[in-house]
Amino acid sequence: MCVLGLGLIGGSLMRAATAAGRTVYGYNRSVDGTQAATFDGFDASTDLTDTLQRAAADDALIVIAVPMPALPAMLDHIVDTAPDCPLTDVISVKGAVRAQVEASGLLSRYVGGHPMTGTAHSGWSAGNAHLFEGAPWVVSVDDHVDEQVWGAVTQLALQCGAFVVPARADEHDTAAAAISHLPHLTAEALAVTAAHVPLASALAAGSFRDSTRVAATAPDLVRAMCEANADKLVSMLDHAIDLLTKARASLSEGRSVAELVEAGHAARIRFDSFTRPDIVALSIGEEGWRDSLAAAGRAGGVIRSALPSRDTRG
Amino acid sequence: MCVLGLGLIGGSLMRAATAAGRTVYGYNRSVDGTQAATFDGFDASTDLTDTLQRAAADDALIVIAVPMPALPAMLDHIVDTAPDCPLTDVISVKGAVRAQVEASGLLSRYVGGHPMTGTAHSGWSAGNAHLFEGAPWVVSVDDHVDEQVWGAVTQLALQCGAFVVPARADEHDTAAAAISHLPHLTAEALAVTAAHVPLASALAAGSFRDSTRVAATAPDLVRAMCEANADKLVSMLDHAIDLLTKARASLSEGRSVAELVEAGHAARIRFDSFTRPDIVALSIGEEGWRDSLAAAGRAGGVIRSALPSRDTRG
Repeated sequence: MCVLGLGLIGGSLMRAATAAGRTVYGYNRSVDGTQAATFDGFDASTDLTDTLQRAAADDALIVIAVPMPALPAMLDHIVDTAPDCPLTDVISVKGAVRAQVEASGLLSRYVGGHPMTGTAHSGWSAGNAHLFEGAPWVVSVDDHVDEQVWGAVTQLALQCGAFVVPARADEHDTAAAAISHLPHLTAEALAVTAAHVPLASALAAGSFRDSTRVAATAPDLVRAMCEANADKLVSMLDHAIDLLTKARASLSEGRSVAELVEAGHAARIRFDSFTRPDIVALSIGEEGWRDSLAAAGRAGGVIRSALPSRDTRG
Repeated sequence: MCVLGLGLIGGSLMRAATAAGRTVYGYNRSVDGTQAATFDGFDASTDLTDTLQRAAADDALIVIAVPMPALPAMLDHIVDTAPDCPLTDVISVKGAVRAQVEASGLLSRYVGGHPMTGTAHSGWSAGNAHLFEGAPWVVSVDDHVDEQVWGAVTQLALQCGAFVVPARADEHDTAAAAISHLPHLTAEALAVTAAHVPLASALAAGSFRDSTRVAATAPDLVRAMCEANADKLVSMLDHAIDLLTKARASLSEGRSVAELVEAGHAARIRFDSFTRPDIVALSIGEEGWRDSLAAAGRAGGVIRSALPSRDTRG
């Protein structure tokens, strides 16, 4: 398989897939990152055309792991050099990626993916082979999805120790806005608000540290994911701003904030008790399999080992 | 010393001060909590009058560790039974506590305190002797503060392994609104917003878990601290809502959120590199000592071992 971009996610993927016994090679734009990967014993190159020619010859699964702004140029190169390879990505906004892949004419071999993991650090040196273990890895079940490519992407996620959440791009992006992009913006807002207050740093303890942790993420990455998912994020911002504005009105009138606080507590407790049933009774390729997987994923279901496909079933 | 209220903070204080070699006894309203403390070998009672008579006889330092709504009744009992004891508290809003203490006529023997620590759990069983280690413990340096009582409260904080941040009640409350009360409300708002989104629980990972962690705090405690600090919290909410509203406008118009994201990142990085110089060149009781300590605390200074007092200085 071929990984394009060897930062935190791409670099961790190279390590994890290698540890799982796969042959992995990759491209990285920066010489520093490529040298670091090579020094660590991996097969990395700064020559994109050469890397893609190799992928085309191998019919390798190509994983795009570059930031959103670098995606269009990367797709152009793939169209030129390896247009028939099965294709996936690990970018955090699925609708925007899918639209660009479609515009490039590569949609029929593309199945979007998104491992829901990360740290506040970036680059090859921040990665590790265990980053995906026990993490959700969304694999797209949109209407265009080919069952063979879908199986290949799911297999990769499982080999890396993740479990697979099947989801449509649109529903993924709405959920990502709620549980990742919005928390990034509130973390930034909390950090900026406290920065103006004398004594704030002196008194900051666990609640501030946790609630602003993701503000330490590289600004370019935060911008890229928020701006690529602007529509969904605007809806979530409206919801959160509305809740905070109502709490503000209550406090300024000497009333209670019980409504928000009790609803938030109940929601958080439900989140802690969320369980993930295994999806097992489905065969990939059978009539309506994409819809069935989307429904199962919506209900919390996950895939922990390869599902049977139409071909392999008795 | 005498601890009134043996929940998470009061119970941890009883354990920590006992471990430091002090004689500690306490009162708890609930029979369950009192029995649990007694079972663990501590001197706990459900008889408030008896406990306060003992404190009066010993001239013990009384620490009020009950929730804000229980404070007025507690102060009435102290006025009746132990009005001359040195008095402190561990409640998270200092202006509101001070106002009630003043209304009770107990101000001259009172020095407010606030250990900046906690967990999402509550009650005697949630406490532990190490809760205060390495944590900031604010001790009030308001104008009324008596140097003897101030020394006693500071000594207790240091014995529990905390370091002392001297601060005026008003400045403490503004900072607490920024670094604790506001993050609690944003955590509640994030949890409520995500609760409406299918797939959100399925995809939630570290950023959501961290940014909503404090929403698991008992709603009564969150309400008590937010509502008792309503004025300061409203200002902080205004600031945060304004930042989020501007980001929302940028996103809806296809513009960048760079301004918020870069400012948030810079603020969070500064927070990580914040250092705390030791306050050493001050003598308690010397001319203007309260103002000097407030200024030193504002600049990030902390007290890690007892300062000399006017009496002990050569």
